[in-house]
Amino acid sequence: MSRNYKLPRDKKIKLSQFDPDDTASFKDKDEVAEHYAKLKEELTELQDMLFAEKKHSLLIIFQGMDCSGKDGVIKKVLSGVNPQGFKVNSFKKPTIEESAHDFLWRAHKETPERGFITAFNRSYYEDVLITRVHNQIDDEEAEKRFKHIKSFEKLLADHDTIILKIFLHISKDFQIQKIEERLHNPAKKWKFDPSDLLERNYWDAYQKAYEGVFTNCNSKEAPWHLVPANNRWYRDYVVLGLLVDALKKLSLSYPDPEIPMEDLIGLLPMGSKPK
Amino acid sequence: MSRNYKLPRDKKIKLSQFDPDDTASFKDKDEVAEHYAKLKEELTELQDMLFAEKKHSLLIIFQGMDCSGKDGVIKKVLSGVNPQGFKVNSFKKPTIEESAHDFLWRAHKETPERGFITAFNRSYYEDVLITRVHNQIDDEEAEKRFKHIKSFEKLLADHDTIILKIFLHISKDFQIQKIEERLHNPAKKWKFDPSDLLERNYWDAYQKAYEGVFTNCNSKEAPWHLVPANNRWYRDYVVLGLLVDALKKLSLSYPDPEIPMEDLIGLLPMGSKPK
Repeated sequence: MSRNYKLPRDKKIKLSQFDPDDTASFKDKDEVAEHYAKLKEELTELQDMLFAEKKHSLLIIFQGMDCSGKDGVIKKVLSGVNPQGFKVNSFKKPTIEESAHDFLWRAHKETPERGFITAFNRSYYEDVLITRVHNQIDDEEAEKRFKHIKSFEKLLADHDTIILKIFLHISKDFQIQKIEERLHNPAKKWKFDPSDLLERNYWDAYQKAYEGVFTNCNSKEAPWHLVPANNRWYRDYVVLGLLVDALKKLSLSYPDPEIPMEDLIGLLPMGSKPK
Repeated sequence: MSRNYKLPRDKKIKLSQFDPDDTASFKDKDEVAEHYAKLKEELTELQDMLFAEKKHSLLIIFQGMDCSGKDGVIKKVLSGVNPQGFKVNSFKKPTIEESAHDFLWRAHKETPERGFITAFNRSYYEDVLITRVHNQIDDEEAEKRFKHIKSFEKLLADHDTIILKIFLHISKDFQIQKIEERLHNPAKKWKFDPSDLLERNYWDAYQKAYEGVFTNCNSKEAPWHLVPANNRWYRDYVVLGLLVDALKKLSLSYPDPEIPMEDLIGLLPMGSKPK
């Protein structure tokens, strides 16, 4: 991949400087098809080793405006992953019980154990996004939450969780196209939520709130990646590449059984010798 | 499919009467390949509708001797299912907290919500299997647990959970072959657990305990299916067919958005009219 779309740290981020139509040097889906298929195979093997080794876990956080393709990327890139070692958590409006705790409580319960991959479809970042856009928290409270988020992510990273934060970057025009497509497709109509149209009026405020997140919660342990997402084939390709890269860095391998091989021979039926 | 492998109810089950090598009239994988691919597509669409409708949930319970292929069938048949609506729970030795509750507690927490599919890799049935084999519970306690299980499954069924219980039926010879294969394959060695060899000495007691389960916990709402599993391609094919059949019976369809279509028009930008 030509770029990894990691956002720079300790620098003010302006979303308008990033092109949601970017596809690097690729013209269309066909141009990445072969590499995409290869990456899929790599992901399957890497996940298998992650699960076998049980030393690390991987937490993927997907954020993005309504219709940016969070559901789609999970379906397309992550179906095929062995479901035994993989889980998706979709964070909706907090329940009464969840609201009665600190804002990280419900997420902490769902972080992956060693060997596992978990994807968050939305996350605790909503608590510094939607709440800020609708003035439910002030700047001082937001600053506090940024600090809590950074400490929380450090805790996870210190306990062998790789954190991959992905923002799916779309344009406002792309969003309305997708809303309309939903309404004209009988198999997608049910996904239409009138509040998507209402929230659309707060587009600029959301972009600003995201910029706040990227400027304040972008650490070495838990970096943000901005993925151009107006072209779905390119979005899928980049996200898949990010996953494979993250797992490759772990130098995973298949472990041996916990008892020495020579001790096994006595346990096995005649003629059966482990290598 | 020629047979659905549903075990008869209210009848004593003898496992020795069922052939683990059975492949119906099919000779090999190639003969089912086309139908298998079609079933996979059907499963994808049915799951999408299940998720959209949010009226029912599906709980699949996989049981079987060590090396019967529970992990394998989940990986092969269920990867490809949209992970957003699907979860696997593998039940291991209970934790201290779990043991301090009734034996259904940890399973109940993980049952699927409406719209979702959950697969249990092992389940509360272990509490009337391994415990019986090792004489941790007596027959009287087992009878009590059978009743609790039946009431629990009725509770789930009454709240729109479809329960599909699948026993992967293998032979004792097949098991030792698989154990040996694990030890000779660097990518599978880590799965070898010496206790598999020790438990193998209790093969007959396990078969008897399973027969107790099939005779006592086979209800209309939660039927047991015995799937011949010595041939993995056939096992996958039968399990996939069972899943598709279970979902087909629900007459699923895509729902409309919750607000009337005509009310939407006012919300949309000019020129955009929902059908």
